[in-house]
Amino acid sequence: MARWQPGAPERLQKAALELFTTRGFEQTTAAEIAQAVGLTERTFFRHFSDKREVLFHGQQLLVQAFVDGVAAAPPEASPLEVVAFALRSVSHFFPDERRPQSRTRQSVIDRHPALRERERHKMTTLATTVADALRTRGVGELQAKLAAESGMTVFGISFVLWLRESEERSLADITDEVFGELLDLAGEAADGVRASVAKAP
Amino acid sequence: MARWQPGAPERLQKAALELFTTRGFEQTTAAEIAQAVGLTERTFFRHFSDKREVLFHGQQLLVQAFVDGVAAAPPEASPLEVVAFALRSVSHFFPDERRPQSRTRQSVIDRHPALRERERHKMTTLATTVADALRTRGVGELQAKLAAESGMTVFGISFVLWLRESEERSLADITDEVFGELLDLAGEAADGVRASVAKAP
Repeated sequence: MARWQPGAPERLQKAALELFTTRGFEQTTAAEIAQAVGLTERTFFRHFSDKREVLFHGQQLLVQAFVDGVAAAPPEASPLEVVAFALRSVSHFFPDERRPQSRTRQSVIDRHPALRERERHKMTTLATTVADALRTRGVGELQAKLAAESGMTVFGISFVLWLRESEERSLADITDEVFGELLDLAGEAADGVRASVAKAP
Repeated sequence: MARWQPGAPERLQKAALELFTTRGFEQTTAAEIAQAVGLTERTFFRHFSDKREVLFHGQQLLVQAFVDGVAAAPPEASPLEVVAFALRSVSHFFPDERRPQSRTRQSVIDRHPALRERERHKMTTLATTVADALRTRGVGELQAKLAAESGMTVFGISFVLWLRESEERSLADITDEVFGELLDLAGEAADGVRASVAKAP
């Protein structure tokens, strides 16, 4: 029986990224990824349910960071402020030294529909989890869904910006800016609604 | 050679919904769907690339309705107001008499991961198309993405509410309410940001 190896998932993910990049996603088997770091196929499948999952190692930690961020927000914070608070704590999950590896990972995902699909699925699950965490704080169902999905929109857009080759701002700074932009857009629309109500006879 | 039949896609979709519901999605073949309405498998594949696509017939019309809605919004409308305008025109696409069929369709999709995945993909594509349409109006890239994705959030949540068994409000009314709720949430968060700036030393 193979001994448990500390850090095996991280090593498997690193090897998978290299193989997916150099040889291609379809052309790489789970056995080959395992072999590259001296592990067996069986060990691979003890950590990951399939070849795609290896790129989403760490997702559970990200989900937990969101949930913890929602729980740690000040009690008086409104639903979207709670989400903004959670986004800020999650952004520390992606320090700048992680940017090169995140870029490689994303470029592999972007090239493969099966991986993009898995990523969309993960984001949907994340939104549901954040909405549940908001409801635990007493936020109503509709508000919780809207706030959670708006948070995912801000996170998704910010993350893509953070990965751009020329980008040097931290994920936290980008997220703050994108979130502020969303509030500005909503403010403009609310002014428009008020103006049209005022105009009505 | 089979003659072109008007309404073949609609008839195929209706037959597919019945078969998917009674027999199950996996157990139904494209040939059987075609046969149920007196068409050949070849005709099926002239209309749809695979068995999943038959449930998304009409998607292209929905996309076009969004694009037309964005283009038809008043020139002075802000990005999110444009999206609200487009949502209102799209909601007429789903009159109340369409609700029973939409419910059946959604329950089939909800039961099958492969169909849910296709639906998520369609929504992502729709968001990208709406963002492009906003850019055509001169909206900046970040604002266009945020406004388009917020619109999809409102549309997605509203559509699920519209399909609930007990629901009697029109999709237009639900969409208006959900959109208003989003603006309220953003307004509360903006007030919070202003308050914390005012509190800063």
